[in-house]
Order: sequence, then C-alpha cells, then structure tokens
Amino acid sequence: MKNNPSSSYSFTIRVLIPNKPGQFARLATIIGKAGGSLGVVDLITADRNFITRDITIEASSNQHETEIVKKLQRNKSYKIMNVSDRTFLMHLGGKIEVKSKLPIKNRAMLSMAYTPGVARICEAIHENKRKVFTLTIKKNMVAIVSDGTAVLGLGDIGPEAAIPVMEGKAQLFKEFGGVDAFPICLDTKKVDEIIQAVKMIAPVFGGINLEDISSPRCFEIEEKLKQELDIPVFHDDQHGTAVVVLAALMNALKIVKKEMKKIKVVVMGVGAAGVACTKIFKRAGIKNIIGCDRSGIIYRGRTENMNPIKEWYANVTNPNNISGGIKEALKEADVFLGVSGPGLVTSKDLSRMNKHAIVFALANPTPEIMPEDAWKVAEIVATGRSDYPNQINNVLCFPGLFHGALQVRAQEINDTMKIAAAKAISNIVKSDELSREYIIPSVFNPNVARVVSKAVMTAAIKTGVARKKTITQDEKIV
Amino acid sequence: MKNNPSSSYSFTIRVLIPNKPGQFARLATIIGKAGGSLGVVDLITADRNFITRDITIEASSNQHETEIVKKLQRNKSYKIMNVSDRTFLMHLGGKIEVKSKLPIKNRAMLSMAYTPGVARICEAIHENKRKVFTLTIKKNMVAIVSDGTAVLGLGDIGPEAAIPVMEGKAQLFKEFGGVDAFPICLDTKKVDEIIQAVKMIAPVFGGINLEDISSPRCFEIEEKLKQELDIPVFHDDQHGTAVVVLAALMNALKIVKKEMKKIKVVVMGVGAAGVACTKIFKRAGIKNIIGCDRSGIIYRGRTENMNPIKEWYANVTNPNNISGGIKEALKEADVFLGVSGPGLVTSKDLSRMNKHAIVFALANPTPEIMPEDAWKVAEIVATGRSDYPNQINNVLCFPGLFHGALQVRAQEINDTMKIAAAKAISNIVKSDELSREYIIPSVFNPNVARVVSKAVMTAAIKTGVARKKTITQDEKIV
Repeated sequence: MKNNPSSSYSFTIRVLIPNKPGQFARLATIIGKAGGSLGVVDLITADRNFITRDITIEASSNQHETEIVKKLQRNKSYKIMNVSDRTFLMHLGGKIEVKSKLPIKNRAMLSMAYTPGVARICEAIHENKRKVFTLTIKKNMVAIVSDGTAVLGLGDIGPEAAIPVMEGKAQLFKEFGGVDAFPICLDTKKVDEIIQAVKMIAPVFGGINLEDISSPRCFEIEEKLKQELDIPVFHDDQHGTAVVVLAALMNALKIVKKEMKKIKVVVMGVGAAGVACTKIFKRAGIKNIIGCDRSGIIYRGRTENMNPIKEWYANVTNPNNISGGIKEALKEADVFLGVSGPGLVTSKDLSRMNKHAIVFALANPTPEIMPEDAWKVAEIVATGRSDYPNQINNVLCFPGLFHGALQVRAQEINDTMKIAAAKAISNIVKSDELSREYIIPSVFNPNVARVVSKAVMTAAIKTGVARKKTITQDEKIV
Repeated sequence: MKNNPSSSYSFTIRVLIPNKPGQFARLATIIGKAGGSLGVVDLITADRNFITRDITIEASSNQHETEIVKKLQRNKSYKIMNVSDRTFLMHLGGKIEVKSKLPIKNRAMLSMAYTPGVARICEAIHENKRKVFTLTIKKNMVAIVSDGTAVLGLGDIGPEAAIPVMEGKAQLFKEFGGVDAFPICLDTKKVDEIIQAVKMIAPVFGGINLEDISSPRCFEIEEKLKQELDIPVFHDDQHGTAVVVLAALMNALKIVKKEMKKIKVVVMGVGAAGVACTKIFKRAGIKNIIGCDRSGIIYRGRTENMNPIKEWYANVTNPNNISGGIKEALKEADVFLGVSGPGLVTSKDLSRMNKHAIVFALANPTPEIMPEDAWKVAEIVATGRSDYPNQINNVLCFPGLFHGALQVRAQEINDTMKIAAAKAISNIVKSDELSREYIIPSVFNPNVARVVSKAVMTAAIKTGVARKKTITQDEKIV
C-alpha cells in the first residue's frame, strides 16, 4: 500500500538554477513526475546569472525521498547544493525546553526564586504537604513514562529511541491543553522496577501518563501504580484510545440510529487498546462484544494462546460463547473495531456485518482495511490517519483530560471521568453537522481541550476524587 | 543577628488612602519606623476622595512582615485592602514550565513532531544510539536530583518541600547557562534506591546534578553513579562550592601575595562542601589543610565522632597531625574556610591567624562570623550572602560548567574541568580590578557562563572525556 506524499517525509533542497525563463518549470516537472509534491519555494539569492532557491518537497517514504533526489540529480542544468530532511532538522537538540516563567535578571528576583527567599516556601510545604499542589510545578505537571517496549508500530526499541515520541507528547500536552509534561524514559523493562521508579519520582508530578509500554505488562504496571499513588495514573494507549473511540461511536450510532445496548461489536486485537475499549464499551452499555486475536474469537474454554487478561476477557464478553475466526465473529455485527495490525480484514469479511455497518480500522500507519475498501460495505469508516475523514486521535482526549484532572487535584482518573470526556468530545460535533465523514472533531478544533477539561472536572468533583471541590473559571487553557 | 530588609521577605499591600496632602507620607513614616524598607509604589485608582495604591515593602523576616502589617493596621486614616507576600505569589503554580520549541499549529507540524514522522527519528536512534545526543533533549538536559534530606539550612524536609529549591535551580540553569534542567525529587532516602532511580531515568538526561542530599550519603551516591553512568554526575553542594571557593581563593592570594603551596588552610565543617573544597585545594597545590568538626581537629588516631570519610580526611590532611579545637587549628593559619554553621567563630579566634588573613565564612544565611566582626582581624572576607561584598555563589559555576560538559557530550566532569572552571571564574576579575572587596565576579556578570563553558569544553577535550572532539562556535548561551 503506497502512502500519499506527506510532511512526515518532507525535505528541502537548496538548488542553484540558471537565471533564465523555464528553468524552474523543468525542475518542478521532474519533481512531479517522480511523485513528489511541491511545497514552499523560497528565493535565497539572485544575480544576473543564477538564482538560489530552497524548495520543500513532500515524499511518501524515506525511499521515495531518495528516489526523488536521485532523479533530480540526473539533470545537469541546475545544481543541488544541499538536501535537508525537515523532520530531522526539527528534532535537532530535541523539541521541548524547560523555561523559567519569570526572568531572573536582578538580585531581588534571585533572592525570591532561590536562596534565601525560597526557604520560606519550602518551610510552608514542610508544614503542610498539601501546599505542594499550589506552590510548585506539581500543580500542572505530568510525567510521560515509557520503557520503550511498544513504541508506535516499531515495537521494543528501548528508552533512548522512545524519547522523540515522549517529547512530541509533551509538546501536545502543552500546545493543546496548557499542561506541562516531561518525558521519563526508563532504562528497565522489569515491571517491579518500573513501578518502583515511578513511585520514587512521583513527588514532582500531579499525574502520570503511561505510554508505549507493551501488553500485558502495561496492565499490571497501571493497576499497581493506581493503588499506590494518590495522583492520576493513566495509560494513554489504553484509555485515551478508548475515550476517543467511544466518542466517535456515540456519534456514529446517532447517524445509523442504533442503540448501544442492542449492537454487536467485534474488537480485533486484545492488547492495551482493545482491552480498554472493551471495558469502556461495557460501561457505556454495550452487551454483545466479541474479541478476536490472531488465534480467532476469544471464548470461555479456549486453551490456545491465552493469558490472564484474555481469561478475564473471555469471562466478561461473548455472551453466547461463540468460537471461530474473524469471519464468524463478524456475522451480523454492527461495529468492527480494529486495534491490531495492517490489512487483516477484507471487504468480503466485512460484508457479513449488518446493514449500516460501522468500521473503525485504527492500526497505524496502515489500517486493518483501507477506507477505499471499507467504504464498499460500511456506512461509516474511521481510521487513525489524518489523510482520511474521521481520524481517531488521542490528542482529542489527553490534553483536556489531564488539564481537568490537575485543576481539581484529582486523586485518580475514573471511568465516570473518561465517559464524561467521551461525551464532551462527541458533543462538539453538533447534530446538524454530523455526517458519515464527520463523526469526530478535528484535533485542531480549539474548543476540544476546554470542554473536555470542564466535563472531567465536574465528573471528578461529582465522584469524590477531586481534592479541590470547586471549578475556578479563570483556569486558562492555552 | 538581625538581617537587613530584603526582597526575600517583601510583600505588597493594597491601601485606600484619602486623597489629601500628607496622607501618603504618614504611611511611609509608619513603615520606616517599623524597620520596613519602602519599594515600588503603584497608583491603582484615584478619584476626588480616595487613592488606591499598591505599596511594596521589604521586611527582614516573616515575623517582621507581620509586625509591620500590624503597626500599619493600627492607624485608621487609611484602609489596608489586601496584603500579599511577593515570594509566595511568585511561587504559585511553580516557577518553571515545559514548552514546545516550535508551535504545533497545523497538520504538517503535527505529523513531523509526532506520528507518523517521529517514527523515522526513533528508528534512526534505534539504529545508532549515539544519535540520542543530537536528536533529543538529552543534548542539553540536566536532572536536578534530590531526596530532600539536606535542603538549604532546613535539613531533612522531604522531597515535596525540596521542590521549590530544585525549580529555582532549574531557573538558574536556564537563565544563566541556557541549559534545560528538570527537578527529580525522590521519595526515598535509601542510598541504593536513589542510585537505582537515577540510573533508570538517565536515558533522557545529558547530565545529573545531585542537590541537597545529606552527608555522608551523598559521597557514596555520587561515587556509584559516576561509576555506572556514562554522563556527568556532579554533586553541586560539593563541587560547585569547591570550584567557586577555589576561584575566590586564587584571587584573594593574588592580593595578599601568598602562594598555594605555602599557605595553611583551616576548613571548618567536613560535610559535603568541606570535603570537596579540601579535595580541590589539594589538587590546586595546598599542602597544609586542617579540618575541624564539632569535635575539634580531625587527626589520625582520633576515635570520637569518626566515619569512613573522616578517616580518609585524617589520612590526607593535617601533615603534622595536630589535635585540639578550632583555636589550636587557627594558629598561624592563612585561610579560614567555614562551611559549617552560624556564629561558630569569633574575631578573637581569628586573631590567632597569620597576617593578611583570608576568611571565607560561608554558612548560610548566617555565616560562622559576620563580616563586621571578621573585618576586625582579616584582610579579605567573603560570605555566601548577597548583601556583603565577595559573595561565594554556586551560580557562578554550575550553569557554565554543565553547558560546557553538555556541548562536548562529556562522559564525566573531572578535576581538570573543575579547576579550569575555577580559573576561568577568577580570571574574569582583571588584575587592575582586584581588591579586598572584589575577589569574585557578580553572579549577574554576563561573561561568566560563557567563559566557564569554554574552559570546561577545552579541558574535557584535553582530558579525553569528551565524545565531541571540537568546539562549535555557534553554541549559544542565553
């Protein structure tokens, strides 16, 4: 499956072109024929003989980028001075920084921010530990914790190689939710050590976002940390996905006019995301859920390829205890949720579903079935990709969710808060805007984080997990 | 000992004053008589009858602040609407934030900073782990690690109450050295667990700054971490102090025309700072060093109040193995270095020293002897305080030192680098500027971090601990 050219694979060439008519057009033609997409064109210098330009080109893969450059180099009527990869350039020296909120430009500032003035703040917290939530960064600071074992689709690449993802996540926390977040990439894969490390670093943080930790280890780590810490612990790959999927499903069901309690849902993939989606589906009232992994339907009595999580899964799903493969599972299903791997279902498989089928194929970057194929049989299709309608993206959830939890100093993020977040996200799409191709707001919709945060604060206060009992109106979101 | 009014204890009152001549003067007189120092006066609103002003007042302690407010409240010709403590206001919500270096305002940026583009950066680091130093925040990021056991003069106040100090330190790293730094306050006091925690979080960081960890635990923690990590580990309370003390001593000796190898130095206090100063003194060529603790001179054969560090200390100092108290130690000493507690020596004690005595009384906020008393017998006096000349302040060292170490990707900060930093700091004071009251540059001298960084880079490359073998000129310091 070939991707479209995108900014993820964009690069900039600096090229010296003779200052004659038609020269640039020749270059542009070569780029177009090579399948590249022409972006920004800057003029750097120009004299009577030559023009130097920076030309940004989008390719569809690393290999495609190399091919385009090779084709460009074959033509000798201009000269390529330099090729720079924009994604790599953006990452030089990292993507986040730690800044002082106030400049320390004179002795008065220095003696308040640091010794001797700071001692008074330390004493105040020492006398009343709860003041740590108002007088330090704990008020608004999340740890993004990963061991690098399940990074994107790349698998176990280790803590160092995971850092760019965690930095990106920190950027999104700040840019979308006004929440400060810092990457903690742990040099251990042992469950006990990860739990121990997070507990030890917890004093500075108001919340813990677990990220890209492989399944089923992630379940135990999250469960233990939730028991032992008095701040929210949230595995985004599980619950962030579940919240956004539920939001999209709420709106999709409005369009096809079906009810939660009456639908049959097939969940393909019972890792972190599949398990969490199943849990939130049950909380939302869905009765008939069938889970599938590479060994087929998960049912009570299955012996092949089981583990404690799958045992639990078999017990709480599959009310008629059916068995078989994905084909059997999909029979008369209303919803297919793929959180597994690329290209694992066909439109023929999906044709066994009920009318007005809803297909969420979320494997990234290549879905379980490409939308072009899913559309043949499904009424509503969503993916994790930004280049098709209905992108299921966790960015819709975690910035606002954590913002709300931090503002009311929540001790945990419970199911009520998650479902409130899902409802808030779904309600952003007004009923007169709802359509097959618009069931979920854009990640750049400026209202999302604010309404999610507010819904989460209200739910936290209502369920008694908020240490702060009122919502202050002036808490800003960037 | 009463402090002078300072911004560490400054507060702002909002006051409603009748709009008649002489009313403000009355208020100012009350403030002055109460010992407060009048700062900025802002006009907030004014009409025919009343003026509202914000008046900033510096006090000398919390108690003094309360007294001033009480005295002001007794007079009924104006009305105090509000009292706000500026140091507390400054700390609301913490003093640092984590920011994205670039705004994420569109899909192109999002797909480069996060999925799918970021996967290419992860893969590049996974293939070649050294790229973590160029493509992530590790390039310029320091962990400020504390367990909260020896915070300022406050002792063991715990990790939460230590956070404001670590935030302040992070501000100074950024504001003075352009280095990103993040507070890691650990919820454990066990040496092994602290070591373990730092090792686990190390992937994200290019350096570890240990801070406010009690002695003698700090020695073992630093030593083990240095052995096990391939990034610099630096206990600032030890080595930062030692570097700045050595810089000041170099200049002080120029004034009194004495040589390192011929002087006798008394070190009062053999905790973290005392031990590190002694080590750097020996490296700098000083032969005759006498250490004192609350049990008196440390000598070979002493049995009272010893520990492994003091055994080591006895073996490497005190060449004539003298014993006795601080009085005996000071006999014919050239330098007194106090890194102990408030008011522990008198000018009579110091009068036993040689002519042109140098006294560094660094206990903070109240020195071993106040400068007014030390000046009676010493030629040169330095303290840790900003309200007297010659402030020995670690801020002169750590921002530039870490900047240099990070830029060349140093594997450690060795003695040669520390001594290079000390020389660089001392050389900022030109020989024609040197005087009894100017042996060390101001922390706000804009050259300090740059010259320290450069000296440290050169020393790191020379001693073979730099992974990067050349200094790039364009590495900016804020």
